[in-house]
This record gives sequence, structure tokens and C-alpha cells, in this order.
Amino acid sequence: MATFHIRENDDKHHPVSTLVIFTAMDSEALPIIEFFKLSPDDGSLFPLGVPWIRYHGTYKDLNINLIYPGRDPDLGVNSVGTVPASLVTYASIQALKPDLLINAGTAGGFKVKGACIFDVFLVSDLAFHDRRIPIPGPDKYGVGRRQSFSTPNLVKELKLKVCNLSTGDSLDMTPQDETCILANDATIVDMEGAAVAYVSSLMRVPAIFIKAVSNFVDGEISIPEDFAQNLQATVVALREVVAQVVEFINGKCLSEL
Amino acid sequence: MATFHIRENDDKHHPVSTLVIFTAMDSEALPIIEFFKLSPDDGSLFPLGVPWIRYHGTYKDLNINLIYPGRDPDLGVNSVGTVPASLVTYASIQALKPDLLINAGTAGGFKVKGACIFDVFLVSDLAFHDRRIPIPGPDKYGVGRRQSFSTPNLVKELKLKVCNLSTGDSLDMTPQDETCILANDATIVDMEGAAVAYVSSLMRVPAIFIKAVSNFVDGEISIPEDFAQNLQATVVALREVVAQVVEFINGKCLSEL
Repeated sequence: MATFHIRENDDKHHPVSTLVIFTAMDSEALPIIEFFKLSPDDGSLFPLGVPWIRYHGTYKDLNINLIYPGRDPDLGVNSVGTVPASLVTYASIQALKPDLLINAGTAGGFKVKGACIFDVFLVSDLAFHDRRIPIPGPDKYGVGRRQSFSTPNLVKELKLKVCNLSTGDSLDMTPQDETCILANDATIVDMEGAAVAYVSSLMRVPAIFIKAVSNFVDGEISIPEDFAQNLQATVVALREVVAQVVEFINGKCLSEL
Repeated sequence: MATFHIRENDDKHHPVSTLVIFTAMDSEALPIIEFFKLSPDDGSLFPLGVPWIRYHGTYKDLNINLIYPGRDPDLGVNSVGTVPASLVTYASIQALKPDLLINAGTAGGFKVKGACIFDVFLVSDLAFHDRRIPIPGPDKYGVGRRQSFSTPNLVKELKLKVCNLSTGDSLDMTPQDETCILANDATIVDMEGAAVAYVSSLMRVPAIFIKAVSNFVDGEISIPEDFAQNLQATVVALREVVAQVVEFINGKCLSEL
């Protein structure tokens, strides 16, 4: 299984300095932007014409960059899903060389696995549930299972709940999706996490994943209504844990997390 | 619907100069590399550690760059699918500023829509079939329908068959996938095209899609065996049409294609 390795010279005597916080939607980004009083980028970080958005600022000893894919130029909706998440993660890592990447976002939760609405999880393992390639070898590539960067002290100090996340590009769930999600032993599902983990792993940047449950995937209420209803309170819960995590990271080296 | 627009100053008096040809697999790339006698890159074009591969050379008045995502560093299999395709397309466009992008690859064909094994199609419309977001607005974003760059003279001169392509990250096909593929009015399916179209559109680079049918999606033989059996002859058919298309492009402006 792919894991994150700390690069040489990154650690021991160098506290984390530059953070990239990636969210998929502006509703997830805005509470974090407000909390850290981040300022909009002048637009020069990314290529001309892409809708990708960066806010940045400093918090204590940290350079914080909040980045999200922005709204689709043709349709005006949030550019959710694995493709924009991959592109923006890649471009952000290239431009900013962060010491650590945090993917913060909302997720669907499985009641049967013990998830509750407004729960905020730190993710241990990530995988895809909608990349079925039934050939030995490519099948594992499709699932793309990866571990997040291990942060035992962070988990202990903040008493964070830890679970597996499964990622797919659809908001609904087919029987095949459900089978794969169960095989991934996931408590929560999202539309970006495993893609962010793939790119971070490729670019050798440690990544952690903070996901807040906005709706049940196995509940009785339909996903779209459920999602809209709880979203506002969920992003506040998400922001609170992100703030605590950033506070904990400040002044520490990667190996102390 | 998103379409490709020719950038100002790109056209009229400037014949196409730099081509990027993107393939998903080394088996699709190698016949093209051999035909154009392309040389391997020294590895400096892309970030350290990524498996992405570039071959390049000149053919008549054209700078040709053949690019593919290479093999997964952990698993050793081709990095197929929309995420690596998006990343490599983005990084190639950033590094090489091509006048035109060609996505050449193999595809599954629908017998019922008239596709035959070894058929080579030029694609007119592309969309995703595995990004179901059942909310008005985001639903269209998920489908991500785009038109390829229009090349009426190329189609006429080379007597190319034209069809719609539907893209998904799985090699198999669920009932939900099939419903979406039918809604996309697709004759062929692949695992990269719509993602390449998305990135090209975002980066304002005209893109065309040449896809050769290696297997039936609605046939009786199981996909993996079918795919392996016909792949070798399919990539030769693909290379022949790519060579004809490049020959036709040479010396012409975008508006003459």
C-alpha cells in the first residue's frame, strides 16, 4: 500500500512552515477563510482563465494557503470531483511546495458504521469506489488505496475520531458503489479525497484529511435535501476542527504530529 | 455546451507548429513513437518522481510530443483513467503550449450503434457517464459534455467516421453506466477522453480525439480477454489514422482543418 514518507531534510529541525488547505466547495472554504482572516490571491498563481481560487495569510508561524477549484466557467457550479481536485492539488503543490497538505471537506456518513451528522473524522485510509478494472493488477490500481500521513499525537491530543474514506465522482450510490465502499471498509464517502491522496503521494507531500459528516448515505432522507439542510452547520463544525488542527501543527515538525 | 474556441492570433497566418499527442497506455504510444521516430525526453519536463513520459521529435514542419502517464510507481501498471489523464494533459499544456492536442487511444464500441472492431473514429462530442450528481445544475457539470475542435476538412479528406464518446473510470459497465452512456448518445467508450476535453477546454487548447475500437462493450466475449486479444491490431490501426491526421495537419492553420 502506498504511504506518505517524510522527505529527507524536511523534518527534525524544521517546523512545518507552509500549509495548503484544499476544499472542494466555496461553502467549505469560506468559514476557514474568515477564521484565519485570509486574503484573496492576485490571480497570478494559476494559469490565466482557470477558475481556481487561492486565499492566503499567516497564522502564528504558519503560511496558510486555502485553495479550492472555484466555479465551472460554463455552468457556474462548484467544480467538485476528482478531476478538478487532482488538478488544483497538483498546481498548488507545484506553486507553493507545501510542507503539509490538509484536505478539509464535508462527507456522507454510514449510520451502520457508526457515523453521526456533524461528526468530524481524521481519515486513515483512502480508496476509490468507482474505478472498477476487473483485471489482476489494474484492479488494485483502480481502487488506489493509500494511507494518509500518520499523525498519532494529533489524534491523541485532539481526541479525533479516525476512519476510512471512500471516494467517487457521483453523489448517489449504486449497488456496485456500495459493494466497493464496503470492501474499502469506509465509514464516510466523499468526491475528492482519494484523488488528493493520489496526487500528494505522487508529489511526495504529506497529506491529512479532515472530513465532516453532512448527511447519511444509508439514511432515509434523500441525499440532496439532506445535504443542503445540514451543510451550514457541518462546515462550521469542520472549521472548528481545522482551526484546532492548525493550532496543534503550529511550531511542530512533521514527526511530532 | 462548452466548445473549443481558437485563440486570437493563433490562426489565419500561423500554421500549426506544436502538437501534443496524448495516449493513456504505453501500448497505444509505442507504434506512434516508432512511426515518427520520436526520442525520449531527458525527464526535465515534468516534476521529479512522476512516472509521466514524453517522446518528441519533428515531422516535416511539426514539433511532435507524444505523452503518456506511464506506469504507476507502486503497482507497475499503466496509469489509466481520468485523474492521470487530467494531470498529464495539464502539465503538458503548461510546459509545451501546443497549438493542438490529439488524444489517441483505444475504446470499447457498441455493436448496436454500428461500431466494428478496428474501426477508428474521430470524436465530435464527449461526456462522462460515471459522474451522477442528481441536482439541477451540478447534474450537467457531472456529465461534462463538450465538443471537440471542429475539423470538417480533415473529416472529409480522410473520410473519417465521426461519433460521440462517453468516458468513465471503470472497465466494466453497470446498468447505471449504460443508461448514462445511452443518454450521451455514445457509440464508443473510453477511460480518459472527457477528462482530456475538460482540461483542454479549461486551458483553451483545441483538442481532437482519435479512438480505435478494440472490443465490444455489448458483445458476448468478456471485456478483459476481448481487449487483450485485439489490442495489438487495434493500436496499429490507430497509428495509421494518427499518421494520416498528422500528415493532413502539417502546413495548415487551425481554421483549415
